[in-house]
Amino acid sequence: MQKKEIPYKIYLEESEMPKSWYNLRADMVNKPAPLLNPATLKPVKLEEIEPVFCTELAKQELDDTTREIAIPEEIQNFYRMYRPSPLVRAYCLEEKLQTPAKIYYKFEGNNTSGSHKLNSAIAQAYYAKKQGLKGVTTETGAGQWGTALSMACSYFDLDCKVYMVKVSYEQKPFRREVMRTYGASVTPSPSETTEVGKRILKEHPGTTGSLGCAISEAVEVAVKSEGYRYVLGSVLNQVLLHQSVIGLETKTALDKYGIKPDIIIGCAGGGSNLGGLIAPFMGEKIKGNLDCRFIAVEPASCPSLTRGKFAYDFCDTGKVCPLAKMYTLGCDFIPAPNHAGGLRYHGMSSLLSQLYDDGLMEAISVEQTAVFKAAEEFARIEGILPAPESSHAIKAAIDEALKCKETGEEKTIVFGLTGTGYFDMVAYEKFHDGKMSDYIPSDEELQKGFDGLPVIK
Amino acid sequence: MQKKEIPYKIYLEESEMPKSWYNLRADMVNKPAPLLNPATLKPVKLEEIEPVFCTELAKQELDDTTREIAIPEEIQNFYRMYRPSPLVRAYCLEEKLQTPAKIYYKFEGNNTSGSHKLNSAIAQAYYAKKQGLKGVTTETGAGQWGTALSMACSYFDLDCKVYMVKVSYEQKPFRREVMRTYGASVTPSPSETTEVGKRILKEHPGTTGSLGCAISEAVEVAVKSEGYRYVLGSVLNQVLLHQSVIGLETKTALDKYGIKPDIIIGCAGGGSNLGGLIAPFMGEKIKGNLDCRFIAVEPASCPSLTRGKFAYDFCDTGKVCPLAKMYTLGCDFIPAPNHAGGLRYHGMSSLLSQLYDDGLMEAISVEQTAVFKAAEEFARIEGILPAPESSHAIKAAIDEALKCKETGEEKTIVFGLTGTGYFDMVAYEKFHDGKMSDYIPSDEELQKGFDGLPVIK
Repeated sequence: MQKKEIPYKIYLEESEMPKSWYNLRADMVNKPAPLLNPATLKPVKLEEIEPVFCTELAKQELDDTTREIAIPEEIQNFYRMYRPSPLVRAYCLEEKLQTPAKIYYKFEGNNTSGSHKLNSAIAQAYYAKKQGLKGVTTETGAGQWGTALSMACSYFDLDCKVYMVKVSYEQKPFRREVMRTYGASVTPSPSETTEVGKRILKEHPGTTGSLGCAISEAVEVAVKSEGYRYVLGSVLNQVLLHQSVIGLETKTALDKYGIKPDIIIGCAGGGSNLGGLIAPFMGEKIKGNLDCRFIAVEPASCPSLTRGKFAYDFCDTGKVCPLAKMYTLGCDFIPAPNHAGGLRYHGMSSLLSQLYDDGLMEAISVEQTAVFKAAEEFARIEGILPAPESSHAIKAAIDEALKCKETGEEKTIVFGLTGTGYFDMVAYEKFHDGKMSDYIPSDEELQKGFDGLPVIK
Repeated sequence: MQKKEIPYKIYLEESEMPKSWYNLRADMVNKPAPLLNPATLKPVKLEEIEPVFCTELAKQELDDTTREIAIPEEIQNFYRMYRPSPLVRAYCLEEKLQTPAKIYYKFEGNNTSGSHKLNSAIAQAYYAKKQGLKGVTTETGAGQWGTALSMACSYFDLDCKVYMVKVSYEQKPFRREVMRTYGASVTPSPSETTEVGKRILKEHPGTTGSLGCAISEAVEVAVKSEGYRYVLGSVLNQVLLHQSVIGLETKTALDKYGIKPDIIIGCAGGGSNLGGLIAPFMGEKIKGNLDCRFIAVEPASCPSLTRGKFAYDFCDTGKVCPLAKMYTLGCDFIPAPNHAGGLRYHGMSSLLSQLYDDGLMEAISVEQTAVFKAAEEFARIEGILPAPESSHAIKAAIDEALKCKETGEEKTIVFGLTGTGYFDMVAYEKFHDGKMSDYIPSDEELQKGFDGLPVIK
């Protein structure tokens, strides 16, 4: 193999790391539609969401005009412990595929939470601490967000109450144990600790829980406990704002070597990783400075962008949260179990939904076994065992690189490798044993979800 | 917090990465004693170990005069996928401890094998491939070495047969699954696939296995199979040679900032990490250019340096391997179960044993619960959940930093953080639940091990 002009891994200097987050909304022609108060059906005001969210985060949620928001020094210091993350040139994958495409991936898995979630967790914990709160509550499904939040709270000495979907709590004891290491209390949901939990346990004895129920429990505890607020790891504008650090670092690294991306790919569940990765590039595209395709990759079993409706819907199954305009399968839609727990959300961030509706972003869906096949191939060639979520992007990137092989085009493909799969080996085991199945919901199933959408005049 | 002159993480440029391994033996005044053929009790010759080891590796094993051995380009390319590893300034830990000491750690956990083991695994796989072999066999206890080797073999398309101590095979299904992802075959040991395995199963029905037994099975398969050789992840000179990449990178990083270490600390089981980390610094010390203390940290339950004898002993419990002169508890000594599986070896590399005997290196032992306490503290402050093995070094580094707090000395402490603990959460769970115990072998127990030492005239 020849000596490469571009290193295998591009690391920025600390001095090159972003000092501000980039708020893409400021540059969007069609802004994301505002959240609506479910009672009044009018756009929510700051004071209406302050009882649930930290004040500064609520402000960030509603701010669609400030382009750059300074990253507080304390958060920058925390970022320096595990960032900058490397932008990796996938030389070995390119050679294996025999493609003329140039493949890069931004790898966010080199921290103990194992994913990009820490970028927003530390910001949310910081603002909670600054507000003088005692702690925060949240829910977690796959466990990555809960782990990230427990690390962030531990750093700022905040209490952290995590409601973990019971089936995950039981099947992923190691995730739970990592959270305990960071001092978080982890409660299997539904639980007897909340009214909504008790009600659900009574109505559905033996239930193994759902993300929707866990959200409802976490919100209830936050609202009822003095000095607590609720925090969320995806979907929200504030989360995409914090995650812009991924895209900003990626852009700085590419700019250093004069590289222009032709395609940027990310997996999409609630949208936090994809929204963060593409933000500064999309800003350039909107301004007419960059000709680049953006591809959201979602599981075929939960196809909110590719088969959902663009409509106002509840963000949670419990229907207590504000309404968001988004591509959604309906908040009553229950995705079939798959092993990318981080992508099993009925809706999609309002911001990404708007970009998709405006034709600025594409979306595709991929099936689970094909995703694991790509994951295993990637692990063997590039030496990183990827999370099932991240592997959706790997699958799409490989497919695009193979198209380049056919056409001979030397496209530059950048994808987000959001995390590692070290706590997902049960899924890999099923794949190896040939026990993994694919699932594509029928039109009838989807229609049931759409039938439950709230009617907004 | 003030802006720091030295970054949180010092990353080398790819061009600054080592092109050669450093063979410390070339600079040692008292060389490590040679391996002896157990039949003749004479120093082993190349042709005697060639049936077991790859030829090039056997040469490296016996070479105590060549100072620098070029790292083949293919291995350098693989290193570029996950190296250079960061040298981290532990600013947050320093602040928490309120110590004037400056603490650095070389973090080797940012790869899917989760430890430094990959540095030697890829070298050993490369030489096996170059020799035209079909595959290699090995044993694994904690699983880090087996994982690293499976990754390396997958990269070079070599078959990889891992004998995994049965109790680990059953208790660490996720480690096993990672190896399967990389295409390795993993057999619980003892097994019916070897003569020695069958014999042990007959003599000890229901046994959960031991490292000694797994070694014997792996060696038997290597010797009996056409095109196979046996490889080992620690103890041997060749392994310490490959691991010198850790120390070389560390030294280059420190030199860039004009930093001289006062104390270098590493955990010590077989010695691969510690031997690699200290190599170039020890070379300078031997030449009189550096005044630095070196501290090996071992578990109190398996204290080969601090309570062992410096004598010729078998490297394996099965007594089929050559004899090595080393600090040893006797190859019949069975360490009490503890959660740092990588440190449960009856002996210590001949090279490190010689340095220790010559007074060039110190050694201490620490107890398990104190180690986990340090591990948890470190995880919360520095954001990395460490492996139990690595945490022995953390414990010692914190203790040294606290001594500096008392004396006011601004010492520079460097320690090796060999890996992450993501597959060790069972151990953390026991620690959290207060179910972890300490064990210190009695003098009588140790005497039994010493009684079994071979008598060499």
